Amino acid sequence: MDVLRRNNVTLSGQGSRTMVFAHGYGCDLTAWRAVAPAFMNDWRVVLLDHVGFGGSDISAFDPERYDSLGAYADDLLEVLEALELNDAVFVGHSMAANVGMLAAIAQPSRFASLVMVCPSPCFVDDADYTGGFSREDVDDLLEVLDANFLGWSRSMAPVIMGNQDRPELGTTLESSFCRTDPDIARAAARVVFLADHRAEVPRCPARSLVLQTSSDALAPVAVGEWMHQHLPHAEYQLMNATGHCPHMSAPEETIAAIRRFVA
Amino acid sequence: MDVLRRNNVTLSGQGSRTMVFAHGYGCDLTAWRAVAPAFMNDWRVVLLDHVGFGGSDISAFDPERYDSLGAYADDLLEVLEALELNDAVFVGHSMAANVGMLAAIAQPSRFASLVMVCPSPCFVDDADYTGGFSREDVDDLLEVLDANFLGWSRSMAPVIMGNQDRPELGTTLESSFCRTDPDIARAAARVVFLADHRAEVPRCPARSLVLQTSSDALAPVAVGEWMHQHLPHAEYQLMNATGHCPHMSAPEETIAAIRRFVA
Repeated sequence: MDVLRRNNVTLSGQGSRTMVFAHGYGCDLTAWRAVAPAFMNDWRVVLLDHVGFGGSDISAFDPERYDSLGAYADDLLEVLEALELNDAVFVGHSMAANVGMLAAIAQPSRFASLVMVCPSPCFVDDADYTGGFSREDVDDLLEVLDANFLGWSRSMAPVIMGNQDRPELGTTLESSFCRTDPDIARAAARVVFLADHRAEVPRCPARSLVLQTSSDALAPVAVGEWMHQHLPHAEYQLMNATGHCPHMSAPEETIAAIRRFVA
Repeated sequence: MDVLRRNNVTLSGQGSRTMVFAHGYGCDLTAWRAVAPAFMNDWRVVLLDHVGFGGSDISAFDPERYDSLGAYADDLLEVLEALELNDAVFVGHSMAANVGMLAAIAQPSRFASLVMVCPSPCFVDDADYTGGFSREDVDDLLEVLDANFLGWSRSMAPVIMGNQDRPELGTTLESSFCRTDPDIARAAARVVFLADHRAEVPRCPARSLVLQTSSDALAPVAVGEWMHQHLPHAEYQLMNATGHCPHMSAPEETIAAIRRFVA
């Protein structure tokens, strides 16, 4: 129960199979509110918040422990262990796609498959690899975020969400960012935006679905294609959806893609 | 996870304390939909379905196993063990009040306290004990239920619910009855309506709240008073609410009573 409380685990739905949803940076389990209920008639649904976000135990956030995405993967594995859960379908958005991949490498039997929503193994360009940002770009982003987290949230949320013809989507994401403790947001941003998990991608044992949107300010199409090429067992879908949060902006297309993958 | 799936356990809410809700005969966890959310900001909330009802694993229902309420209590303890849960507040309606009591006698440390909503340790009158029904009454009820479960549901749901000025409440209960597998409904009815747990009541180790309504076709006021007198650590509240399902017909009064008790 302590682990479940720490990660604000919620359990719902019915079925013999289980789908686990994990959110991206600055979000929480409510990010799945338009997607997860679609599976509750046929699946057990587990939602969780990473430590430091949403309804997690904020006091459990220690920047020394959470100095890499591996710590979040360890937490995920503890949740799956507490639930005695194997062969789960894990749906992770953005940072959580890496978290799920690291967890699946550590304990393959926990995962039947991974759905990676807008994954990026590394935001920084490097030789032949296109992450979408120079190191200078990322340093600038982190500097602004450090100096003024609320200002960063206000300006970046609409860019990350895209879909600027529906500004309420950006506002929802901005509100989610702003609910985050600024100190935690700063520490976690450094981990998320400087992570480089390209070396682990070819070792991912799980069948995977890469959901790449047509236009994503954080993960350009080249990144989704790179994931597809380097994951050993990946399917790739270039979505009609745009923006970095298709589970929020295009839930129907996201649901349909997951359904087809797990059918 | 198998136990959690078997009992369709749902987990939600946030907080350091946990409240567990269990439904009465022919109902399921949706019976708590007007009460449980009131606690989700301050409590972890566990909802479950007894085996044979709602979204539980119907295939796990074996009439030989579920030949007494003790089997449901064993299931409850397995759920609490799976969640590593101690010191829970358990809220049980009708049959589930007995289930919680039996579980608390078996493993006291799992329970901080019990809220018994319309409990009855025994429906059949016996010497000085007023249960509300003669044995012949109960036999008649079971005979009608055996012969025509849907007919029984249609005629009994409004009587059990009371509040006939709000017929939609009776319809909701009838619908809940009708979702139950008729064979299971028949087998479980025999166990529920012929149960006699008067001998266990004085052995209940947990602090308890008896919620008795002013008019209850299944548990007359004398039964609530009997519970109050024989439970070692009981508080008693005669509610303004009427009918056997105040959590459905008078959720605000039910919430307020639980809040005061756990404050």
